[in-house]
Amino acid sequence: MSASIPTDSVGLVTPQSYHFDEPLDLRSGKVLDAYDLTVETYGTLNGEKSNAILVCHALSGDHHAAGYHSATDKKPGWWDACIGPGKAIDTDLFFVVSLNNLGGCAGSTGPASINPKTETFYGPDFPVVTVRDWVKSQFRLMDRLGIEKWAAVIGGSLGGMQVLRWAISYPQRLGHAISIAAAPKLSAQNIAFNEVARHSIISDPNFHAGHYLQNNTYPKQGLMLARMVGHITYLSDSAMRAKFGKTVTDFEATGTNFGRDLRTGKLSFGLNVDFQVESYLHYQGERFSENFDANTYLLMTKALDYFDPSVDYEGNLAHAFANSSCKFLLISFSTDWRFPPERSREIVNALLKAGKEVSYLEIEADQGHDAFLLPVPRYIRALTTYLKRVHQELAAHAS
Amino acid sequence: MSASIPTDSVGLVTPQSYHFDEPLDLRSGKVLDAYDLTVETYGTLNGEKSNAILVCHALSGDHHAAGYHSATDKKPGWWDACIGPGKAIDTDLFFVVSLNNLGGCAGSTGPASINPKTETFYGPDFPVVTVRDWVKSQFRLMDRLGIEKWAAVIGGSLGGMQVLRWAISYPQRLGHAISIAAAPKLSAQNIAFNEVARHSIISDPNFHAGHYLQNNTYPKQGLMLARMVGHITYLSDSAMRAKFGKTVTDFEATGTNFGRDLRTGKLSFGLNVDFQVESYLHYQGERFSENFDANTYLLMTKALDYFDPSVDYEGNLAHAFANSSCKFLLISFSTDWRFPPERSREIVNALLKAGKEVSYLEIEADQGHDAFLLPVPRYIRALTTYLKRVHQELAAHAS
Repeated sequence: MSASIPTDSVGLVTPQSYHFDEPLDLRSGKVLDAYDLTVETYGTLNGEKSNAILVCHALSGDHHAAGYHSATDKKPGWWDACIGPGKAIDTDLFFVVSLNNLGGCAGSTGPASINPKTETFYGPDFPVVTVRDWVKSQFRLMDRLGIEKWAAVIGGSLGGMQVLRWAISYPQRLGHAISIAAAPKLSAQNIAFNEVARHSIISDPNFHAGHYLQNNTYPKQGLMLARMVGHITYLSDSAMRAKFGKTVTDFEATGTNFGRDLRTGKLSFGLNVDFQVESYLHYQGERFSENFDANTYLLMTKALDYFDPSVDYEGNLAHAFANSSCKFLLISFSTDWRFPPERSREIVNALLKAGKEVSYLEIEADQGHDAFLLPVPRYIRALTTYLKRVHQELAAHAS
Repeated sequence: MSASIPTDSVGLVTPQSYHFDEPLDLRSGKVLDAYDLTVETYGTLNGEKSNAILVCHALSGDHHAAGYHSATDKKPGWWDACIGPGKAIDTDLFFVVSLNNLGGCAGSTGPASINPKTETFYGPDFPVVTVRDWVKSQFRLMDRLGIEKWAAVIGGSLGGMQVLRWAISYPQRLGHAISIAAAPKLSAQNIAFNEVARHSIISDPNFHAGHYLQNNTYPKQGLMLARMVGHITYLSDSAMRAKFGKTVTDFEATGTNFGRDLRTGKLSFGLNVDFQVESYLHYQGERFSENFDANTYLLMTKALDYFDPSVDYEGNLAHAFANSSCKFLLISFSTDWRFPPERSREIVNALLKAGKEVSYLEIEADQGHDAFLLPVPRYIRALTTYLKRVHQELAAHAS
């Protein structure tokens, strides 16, 4: 291991690809004949194969949840704050499985993959996949890995929705469902923001109705805008203030020019960037647009919009959980305005109504929706304690 | 008056144009040699010229605040809920002046006007105007109308910022400053949303660096996206829920398919519109993009970003108000997340600190930032009562 890799990291990791030949019937009615899933695992599967944890990723995530792909990587996987030896999801205790979801753009079959039938990119012809479809494909992966029951399925945001779906679709196949910063379904405002993102991509002239790869281009501006909008919703107002200058809630908290951290010290009186938050958003948008597939982004937002497990139960979410036999942990963050605490409480209430065993934790954190990815101390401690108990249960069961 | 025009309307109105020859020194250092302001007035100026109220408009507003331009108009002016005979801003008592701000696109000189020097559209060469510049131009209009002192200056959102600037720039020239749903300056999140709007316009290939009119086109998609984003921030999450279907805060408030009001009853499993909120946003964006000048939109968002009257007082807002001699009424709305109540309280605190006479009212209203335009009963009653008192003061003063 390189000297630059921290000792509490899972270290260097190599993704693996699994091919699946059995056709997958999708929620849309379409069928995916065959597909690949790209997977990373951390830690060691025990002899009973009882210590596996499935990690589900959110909108822009992928299989690379922890560790480094090379010693020169500047950044580890997206959930490295939580996954590693001695960390909350302790790879000394658990075997952690993390995959790139179907329709993704980091290795698993998706719009940027070659469609064997046409020998060109799937592009916009890649079918819309739903949270239920993802969980189905994750179930097949579980089977392939010879795992009978996940010790836990865990995820934040869209990942937390997959967790809920696991508890409904395969109630016997997981011990714990840990759903973080999620919602039982999107609000009209959530859908509205997604639609702005989609519209910005689709209306980019370089989108070419989704066939941009054949045209050797991509809708950079559209993706950039989509990410800029998304990014605003991931951060709380207070997190932005902390990052880009204070606003005066207490107007006596004086200081010159507070609230505006000018790059030049002077206003441009033009359309140039005047405030740091503008260049920050540009940077985030640029970076994202160069590394993410636009068709995948569209699919992911539709999966979010469509998520509503109550829909097969006449809108009664409690009924949806009727057959669930796992234990539940729900976590929300105080300043998350994308999926605020009340949305997690809706899930908690439905679970209580269904008579399920549920723990719920609302974490005071300034970072907004993004908090689920960050080393917020109380959050990390809570997850650590909970998963230690999960491990003790496994040990007790085995002995 | 047409039978279709309600009896509590100011009725048919005709805008007037005022030409100003005296060069206007702008905050940016640039100079506008001459300009026109388009103005509507409602009610009658009394002999003492003491009953005039100036109405300041917000980002997408203009001079047409009340009444109808023709008997076949489907909609009245943007603040018809508040302005008219017997209404809160009672045109039986007051002479109401409403203008299109400089840089606007509804008649006053702006980017879509012809620059006499070049004999073509100003376009992107129209100088960036600030709230301070607007107030300066409104001051000249006041002079032209022979008004010595406004009984009140009133406005919501960006209009409320002009009200604050009046109290600072021309402290002797207004009796009451009524600032509704405003903020002492933008938050980083506010600026971020504005930057998304600007970026969507500027990155539209039809923008042509602002010279779209010469190219016989306009950045329709960019403006549409800008308006879609803006519109989301004007509505509260709860207002959207009310408009487009409920979300289950109480999950027992059952009913099938709640929270999603599908157009077709079925999901499209494609990129079509699935939810009413999507088609609503498209409609709002489309309508706006066909009626608003993109360069004006850019200018208006910069005026918002730049607004911070404390900047000349080392960040001390109380000091900015030191010379103000008017009375203040601040109003905010509980679900406004663009300029939430705490932003109005910052202004109130600064005014109290400066020893000014200030009333503050926080209105419980579901409609978010948009509430200031709507006939929210408690809001209307409060404004009505306050302005009746203003009129009594005038009468007492005159007698």
